[in-house]
Amino acid sequence: MTSTTSLFSPVEADLRLLSENLKQLVGKRHPILSAAAEHLFGAGGKRLRPAIVLLISRATMPDGEITPRHRRLAEITEMIHTASLVHDDVVDESEVRRGVPTVHNLFGNRIAVLAGDFLFAQSSWYLANLDNLEVVKLLSQVIMDLAAGEIQQGLNSFDTNLSIEAYLQKSYYKTASLIANSAKAAACLSGLSAEMAENLYRYGRHIGLAFQVVDDILDFTGSTEVLGKPAGSDLKSGNLTAPAIFALEEKPYLEVLIEREFCKDEDLQQAIALINEGMGIERARELAAREARSAVEYLADLPPSEYRQALSDMAEYVLSRLY
Amino acid sequence: MTSTTSLFSPVEADLRLLSENLKQLVGKRHPILSAAAEHLFGAGGKRLRPAIVLLISRATMPDGEITPRHRRLAEITEMIHTASLVHDDVVDESEVRRGVPTVHNLFGNRIAVLAGDFLFAQSSWYLANLDNLEVVKLLSQVIMDLAAGEIQQGLNSFDTNLSIEAYLQKSYYKTASLIANSAKAAACLSGLSAEMAENLYRYGRHIGLAFQVVDDILDFTGSTEVLGKPAGSDLKSGNLTAPAIFALEEKPYLEVLIEREFCKDEDLQQAIALINEGMGIERARELAAREARSAVEYLADLPPSEYRQALSDMAEYVLSRLY
Repeated sequence: MTSTTSLFSPVEADLRLLSENLKQLVGKRHPILSAAAEHLFGAGGKRLRPAIVLLISRATMPDGEITPRHRRLAEITEMIHTASLVHDDVVDESEVRRGVPTVHNLFGNRIAVLAGDFLFAQSSWYLANLDNLEVVKLLSQVIMDLAAGEIQQGLNSFDTNLSIEAYLQKSYYKTASLIANSAKAAACLSGLSAEMAENLYRYGRHIGLAFQVVDDILDFTGSTEVLGKPAGSDLKSGNLTAPAIFALEEKPYLEVLIEREFCKDEDLQQAIALINEGMGIERARELAAREARSAVEYLADLPPSEYRQALSDMAEYVLSRLY
Repeated sequence: MTSTTSLFSPVEADLRLLSENLKQLVGKRHPILSAAAEHLFGAGGKRLRPAIVLLISRATMPDGEITPRHRRLAEITEMIHTASLVHDDVVDESEVRRGVPTVHNLFGNRIAVLAGDFLFAQSSWYLANLDNLEVVKLLSQVIMDLAAGEIQQGLNSFDTNLSIEAYLQKSYYKTASLIANSAKAAACLSGLSAEMAENLYRYGRHIGLAFQVVDDILDFTGSTEVLGKPAGSDLKSGNLTAPAIFALEEKPYLEVLIEREFCKDEDLQQAIALINEGMGIERARELAAREARSAVEYLADLPPSEYRQALSDMAEYVLSRLY
């Protein structure tokens, strides 16, 4: 139960259909984008976000039968996520993501800005055509949060005073908001009560934060092959995450290194060593575990099903990525 | 009646309020954006789009009394327009717009992409919170069209086979769609019949096309001081517009010059001279006049008022920019 393949098996056919649909929806109208769409939706992505939307949709509908709107919501979720990745890569001037060259790198700044804009625009349009104002509001908030998160990250660059609360807020904006609000939107499309929908929002919020904290730990402990980028990339770019924030409490010299902004590679290697040496990684792992456990609690009101089981196993899977 | 000041006087107070609101709405949450917001919404803009929305709103409401939603729609219209300008400047690597350095130039690629994203995101959010699905759909379509237009323009770069129909289609995407759909959205907020709303859409479509054709003529006939950029900038970047497309029919050598893509400045000067020499400018002027006349016809069903008069005078004003 530690690979996404077995975890997502109850919605495997749904995810295959989603990948095909995404390539067609995006590539069809604009040949210039079809190469980018093939690149973006072709492979590599974990499909975590649409998988959660589809699992919640099936877990909340009678006999697990979902509607075309649930499917469209899952597609919109992946489109918004992909649009934000494409623009993040422009903003951060990233050359590689998941071990694959970025759109920014392959097709240039111009196409990357346009492709991101087009994906955001398309998701807004499909969203409006779901004909559900509540869902439109939830996902519009996500698009705001994504922009706010990226701006916040820029503002806090190399800021050694960043609190763990501010880090979690930024992580909510950048990662958990999309998962939480699309989980709630799936519940709305299934006609659930406001309370049930709110519980699924909380499930998404906590699992999203757990996911982000784990990603941030892997940035220190993973190998270049697994990460598709060198270890310590976040730190190098000034993005302080849980392991570094915890480590700063016990390793004052880390502050000096971070404030020199890693012009010298040996500063970066020393900082990574300091973080790995202390309790920063372990405390971040505990934080992720707490978030994952909280997430599961919010599934209690769902009727038992293979879909609910998969949502619950997701918590274990998120943490299992660390081993 | 040929300056925007006198033309917009029935909504002058509304426009002042709009400018203040925009600076606050955008700058408030993110200090990093407040400099950009001040720069973007501070001065220079003609406020054509929100003026049309406000005039239509007042022309369609009893006693010309508008609601907060009408105002918000006008603000959203200007936000979407500004977001698209900011990203256009990134994509086209423009240094100057309206004689003022671009956000891209002043604050860099990173902030320009983020500021554009944030403005698009904010407009989607305010849009959803207008609580009117029809309006959400109309403006989401605009955001799609803007992205499609910019992509289309890239695809047709230096394409001497571009037809006048394809040019008008691109101009609709890039300029007229926003004016047409926001005009229709204002009508929806006023509770007008579908037929009246459609007429206002057509008014917006035709006035928007007239406006774009006039802008494209000015790119050839205006001075650097008036344009805020050198004459022939569109042509130089490969963006073929009405004067060039008409001129190509009578000046075959223009095709040779365009296909050499203006690596040499003398090619550009020769092309501009050829276009000014022939009937291209005159035929483009006639096209703009036809569009402006068509626009006015669609105002016939509105009750007489100073607002309707201003909308009608707008047609003259658009053309008067040529003299």
